Amino acid sequence: MILLEDLDFNITVVGLGLIGGSYAMALKDLNPKKLWAVDVDENVLKTAEEMKIIDKGYKNPEIPLKESDIVIIALYPKLAIKFIKENINNFKINAIITDVGGIKEEIVKEINSFLPENLDFIGGHPMAGKEKQGIAYASKDIFKGASYIFTPTERNKEENIQILESIAKKIGCKTTVRISPKQHDEIIAFTSHLPHILAVALINCDLINLQTSLFVGGSFKDSTRVAEINTSLWIELLTSNKENIINKLENFENKIKLIKNAIKENNYSLIKSEFEKASLRRKELEL
Amino acid sequence: MILLEDLDFNITVVGLGLIGGSYAMALKDLNPKKLWAVDVDENVLKTAEEMKIIDKGYKNPEIPLKESDIVIIALYPKLAIKFIKENINNFKINAIITDVGGIKEEIVKEINSFLPENLDFIGGHPMAGKEKQGIAYASKDIFKGASYIFTPTERNKEENIQILESIAKKIGCKTTVRISPKQHDEIIAFTSHLPHILAVALINCDLINLQTSLFVGGSFKDSTRVAEINTSLWIELLTSNKENIINKLENFENKIKLIKNAIKENNYSLIKSEFEKASLRRKELEL
Repeated sequence: MILLEDLDFNITVVGLGLIGGSYAMALKDLNPKKLWAVDVDENVLKTAEEMKIIDKGYKNPEIPLKESDIVIIALYPKLAIKFIKENINNFKINAIITDVGGIKEEIVKEINSFLPENLDFIGGHPMAGKEKQGIAYASKDIFKGASYIFTPTERNKEENIQILESIAKKIGCKTTVRISPKQHDEIIAFTSHLPHILAVALINCDLINLQTSLFVGGSFKDSTRVAEINTSLWIELLTSNKENIINKLENFENKIKLIKNAIKENNYSLIKSEFEKASLRRKELEL
Repeated sequence: MILLEDLDFNITVVGLGLIGGSYAMALKDLNPKKLWAVDVDENVLKTAEEMKIIDKGYKNPEIPLKESDIVIIALYPKLAIKFIKENINNFKINAIITDVGGIKEEIVKEINSFLPENLDFIGGHPMAGKEKQGIAYASKDIFKGASYIFTPTERNKEENIQILESIAKKIGCKTTVRISPKQHDEIIAFTSHLPHILAVALINCDLINLQTSLFVGGSFKDSTRVAEINTSLWIELLTSNKENIINKLENFENKIKLIKNAIKENNYSLIKSEFEKASLRRKELEL
C-alpha cells in the first residue's frame, strides 16, 4: 500500500453537486498541490471559491485538466462518459480518472473502449449520499465510516488504484473494496437499487390523506426516507442496471408472496422462521 | 378539554417492558398520587423501584388494582385481554383501563364483551417504539413528538377519554387522535405492519455474505432497521389484523409489478411519474 504523506497532486473535481462538493471539501483538508473544480454553473464555482473549498473553478475544463494528475468526475453516469469523450485530448498524460457513480459495468466498459493507453480510468463508488441534491447539502463528513468500492480492470495500474484507495481512506472512508464492475452492479442492485424502488412503491401504494402522517411511526418514516428520489439520476441507474434490478425485484416478489401466503394460511412456523432469519441477518450485518 | 393540574390519580402500569417502562418513567415526572407497577418478573420490579420510576412493584396485581384510578396495560394484545379477564374483580369501581397495543378492533371488541359497566376500557396506541425490547431500553423520551391514537367507542365516558388525552400530551406526545378501532387497524396495516413485513422480505430475499455489509448505504440500512423484529408480538399483530395486512400487501405487490414492468419495457414516463409522485408525497408527509 502506497502511503501518501502529502497529497502531492493537482486534482480536479468535475461537477460540484452533493458528492463532488463533499469530495472537494474533504480533499481540501488534505492539502493537495492544487485543487480545482469544473462545473457548468458559474455561481456554484464562485460559491466554492468563496468557501475556500477549491483553489479555483472553471467552466472550461481544458485549463485545469491539462495540469491535473487526478480527475474525479462526479457527474451522472451518462454525462461522465460524455465529459471524458469530449475532453479526451485535454487530460494530462498518465492522469488517473475516476468517477463516483452507482453503476459500474456499462460505464467502465464504455470509457475503456475509447480511452487511450496513457490515461487510466478506475471506476469508483463511495457508499455515501443523502436524499438531497446540490453543493448546499455537501459535507466532508459524508465519507466518514463509509466503504468505498473500486472496480478496477486488468488495464489499470496497481499503483494508481492504491493512490485512489489511499485518498478514500484519508477522506474518512472506513474500508475500500475491490470488485469487478459486473459483481458491483449485481450486489448494488440488491443493497441500493432495490430499497429505493421499495420506498417509492411503499409510499405510492395506498391512499395518503391528512391524517396519515399521524399514524406514521419509525418504520414507515425510515423505509420511505429515500422516496424523495432524484428522478433523472435514478432513471439512468435503472436503465443501466436493468437486468440485475428486475432479477432482484423478482426475488423480492417471491419472498413477499411466500410471507403473504403464510399469513393467509396461518402458517406460523414459516412466519416465525422468516422473522427469526431476518432478525439474525440484521444483527449479523452490524449496520 | 380537562386540564390536569396535578395527576391526582393512583396509576398502575402493567408490564414493565419497553413501552410500560418508558410510560412509568414519563408518568413519574408528572407526580401522580401513587405510581405502581405489575410484572411477572421480580427483578424488573426491583430494578424499577431502585430507579425510582415507580413507588412500588407487585407480582400480585390484586393489591395495586384495588386502589388504581387508571390502569395502563402494556402487555402483548392477547395477554392484555387475559390479564383483564383474570383480574375483572380486582379493578377499582370506575377505573379507567387502557392498553398500548398496535391492533385495536379485536382487543376493544373482546374486552368490551365481558367488561362490567362500571369499568371503562379505552383502546390506546402511542406511535412510539424501538426495535429493542425490555425496560433496559426504556426512555421517557420515546413519546416526545409522537402521536397518540385513541379508539374510543360509544360506551366510553367523554371525561375519561379526555383524561387519557391529557396524560398523552403531558408525557410529551405532540398530537392525540381519535379514530374507530376498525379504521385504526386499516391505516396501521399500511403505515406500520406493511413496512415491517417489507423489511423482513428485503433482508431475506437475497444471498448475504461477508461482503454485503460493505455495499450497504443508508437506504438499505434504514429500510431494514425494523427487521430485527419481535417475533412473538408480531405474530399476534399479523393474526389479528390479517385481512387488512393481506389487502395492503396486495396493493403493494401491484405497485411493484407496475414499476417492474415499466423498467422492463423502458417506460420512462411511467417511472418518472411514479418517482415524482413518491418525492412529492414524502415531502408532504413532513416526516
